[in-house]
Amino acid sequence: MAVNLAAPDALTPVAGVRLAAVAAGVRKPDRDDVVVLELAPGSRVAAVFTQNAFCAAPVTLARQHLAAAAPRFLLINSGNANAGTGAAGLAAAAACCTELARLGGCPAQSVLPFSTGVIGEPLPVERIGAVLPAALASLRAEGWNAAARAIMTTDTVAKGHSVTVASPQGPLTVTGIAKGSGMIHPNMATLLAYVATDAAVAQPVLQACLAGAIGGSFNRITVDGDTSTNDACVLIASGQGPVSVDDLSSPAGQALQAAVDEVCRVLAQAIVRDGEGATKFITVHIEGGRDAAECAQVAYAIARSPLVKTAFFASDPNWGRILAAVGYAGLDALAIDRVNVYLGDVCIVRDGARAADYTEARGQAVMAQDEITVRVELGRGVAETTVWTCDFSYDYVRINAEYRT
Amino acid sequence: MAVNLAAPDALTPVAGVRLAAVAAGVRKPDRDDVVVLELAPGSRVAAVFTQNAFCAAPVTLARQHLAAAAPRFLLINSGNANAGTGAAGLAAAAACCTELARLGGCPAQSVLPFSTGVIGEPLPVERIGAVLPAALASLRAEGWNAAARAIMTTDTVAKGHSVTVASPQGPLTVTGIAKGSGMIHPNMATLLAYVATDAAVAQPVLQACLAGAIGGSFNRITVDGDTSTNDACVLIASGQGPVSVDDLSSPAGQALQAAVDEVCRVLAQAIVRDGEGATKFITVHIEGGRDAAECAQVAYAIARSPLVKTAFFASDPNWGRILAAVGYAGLDALAIDRVNVYLGDVCIVRDGARAADYTEARGQAVMAQDEITVRVELGRGVAETTVWTCDFSYDYVRINAEYRT
Repeated sequence: MAVNLAAPDALTPVAGVRLAAVAAGVRKPDRDDVVVLELAPGSRVAAVFTQNAFCAAPVTLARQHLAAAAPRFLLINSGNANAGTGAAGLAAAAACCTELARLGGCPAQSVLPFSTGVIGEPLPVERIGAVLPAALASLRAEGWNAAARAIMTTDTVAKGHSVTVASPQGPLTVTGIAKGSGMIHPNMATLLAYVATDAAVAQPVLQACLAGAIGGSFNRITVDGDTSTNDACVLIASGQGPVSVDDLSSPAGQALQAAVDEVCRVLAQAIVRDGEGATKFITVHIEGGRDAAECAQVAYAIARSPLVKTAFFASDPNWGRILAAVGYAGLDALAIDRVNVYLGDVCIVRDGARAADYTEARGQAVMAQDEITVRVELGRGVAETTVWTCDFSYDYVRINAEYRT
Repeated sequence: MAVNLAAPDALTPVAGVRLAAVAAGVRKPDRDDVVVLELAPGSRVAAVFTQNAFCAAPVTLARQHLAAAAPRFLLINSGNANAGTGAAGLAAAAACCTELARLGGCPAQSVLPFSTGVIGEPLPVERIGAVLPAALASLRAEGWNAAARAIMTTDTVAKGHSVTVASPQGPLTVTGIAKGSGMIHPNMATLLAYVATDAAVAQPVLQACLAGAIGGSFNRITVDGDTSTNDACVLIASGQGPVSVDDLSSPAGQALQAAVDEVCRVLAQAIVRDGEGATKFITVHIEGGRDAAECAQVAYAIARSPLVKTAFFASDPNWGRILAAVGYAGLDALAIDRVNVYLGDVCIVRDGARAADYTEARGQAVMAQDEITVRVELGRGVAETTVWTCDFSYDYVRINAEYRT
């Protein structure tokens, strides 16, 4: 059950982007599991992919296609990751692209493939190919919500967000969808996320905008510490709206960055709120570090600790586990007598030991909430960072013990 | 329930070492929770401690005492870690040492303190001090088994092992005990382990012997990836037996190293077999790496992955999760088409993709066993290493959600 997360209301269409979701029976019958995104000619696309060495076939192919041609279609399936499938997997991904390109009247390299689901099973190319005509026939600008549902795997709630902001040149819309709730520990990329704007943005500017956005969103979340083979995040600029961005530091550029930041942050947090088995949404904020990297190191030590996460599940203010995680995060020459730790507004550790005014009852009151902030002051600099995670429950074990059955 | 682990039979006494276990009510009434080890004059002691920056007060004090004087007593309590307790915790540990030294007729610096249990609670100094006379009165050479039971926390089975080997100078005995089943991911040290030999060994040689032994034992296990604040491993040489070791490369030195290696390996594996909630004992063997460090990197990526560990719990040959962990271990320029993965004797991945002759039934047959070996061939060198871990079950969550209640 997701933590304070509802499926999005009707997402705002983005001029130049049409979507369709259809049921191909990739893994289970009678649920939409194939999504086609059609991009208007002239659209620009930026993307980041998983750094996992065993990246999936569609990741390899999407990288190649993106470098070779202007994308016209994105083809996404859930239910099968097409990872760990070797040369046959690459051929299967290519065959799907070729078929969509044939039907859509473009080069195969203008199709970007994406897959998510079970690793190591052959992709059912024929079943996917068979539904592509129906997908092309049902493309519509209002298709975002249905697409968000179709890319889900162990997700329990569809994830999407829209922002429309004013800029000197007129309004600018950003809409995005994402999926993911397990194997979530992005490494310079993420899960599957598709974000589009109607602004016209040159490709290098778009890539910089995406890099800026994921640093404070998808690259700052963890569910289980496992980095997926299939993570991908795509930012599309259709150029069909009134706004044109040449420079992120311009007023229009700043408006674009802020809107993309917000959409990515909401989507990333939605993934954590719907983390496998999650009952709590945890914000880990580290400040007073020498640099952001060491703040992240401490934040992830806390956010990944099974002992900390089970204590959150139990609403147990077992702050010793938080302290232990800070201690093993590997910071060089950490002076523990300068470290303070807060649960919500309650100071639990001051100068490296239990705060004199701390009581179990005060800690318990914070832990009983379903949204909790852990704040650590390292006392050795001015850098800070925030990571979001969830707790570790019986349901996490159940979901992952039963995943393939 | 521990995996194929029974409490040890009567452990072999080590001449020059006497032990006592008494009940002080540190956390719970009516169970032995304080252990005293008395060492014969002239004993040499080597030790390694946790690298956690938030190391416990007894760790700090034991390091100081070890550097200052020849140890005569080890004082161990379970039920309370005396960690995260600041200056008051140091004073409490020192007070316990002072009291035992007064009763035992030695300097306080000749007492090494150790604690394990809940973090952040004040150590009950008076209750511990009150039982020390009874402890000293009941010291005996046969006290190893009772001591192994008294240092347990969430352990379900007492852990100990004895080896007696022949050497050119005569027989040499090594006996050890250990505790630990959660917050286990040693970093240059371990949990609590006490190993003693009757050989005479110079201190630097003894320290080298210990360093050699833990590299293939306590430093190669993980239960939950959390490094404790209190880990300590102590190797005692009483010098009361017929064997004297000046050099680990001599025949007697090799016999000593082999015996200490075996005792440490059995104890380390016992800790994993009794890992919190464990239902399976997993050996992760990585070979074909450029060096042992990168082999360990891959081994720990697999051994720490909650997704891999829950799949083991479910007896599900979900090898895609193993592959994903190899992929995100962070090896530089890993050629995935050279990677082979085996479950037991079954090749599941060959040249980076599912082996042609692999069937789910064959993988399932291995996963159904309660002792499983995962073997990965990296295909880029000749280095290898082995790590031991356990699965991740509902009981892990239960144990850690209920720990303090």
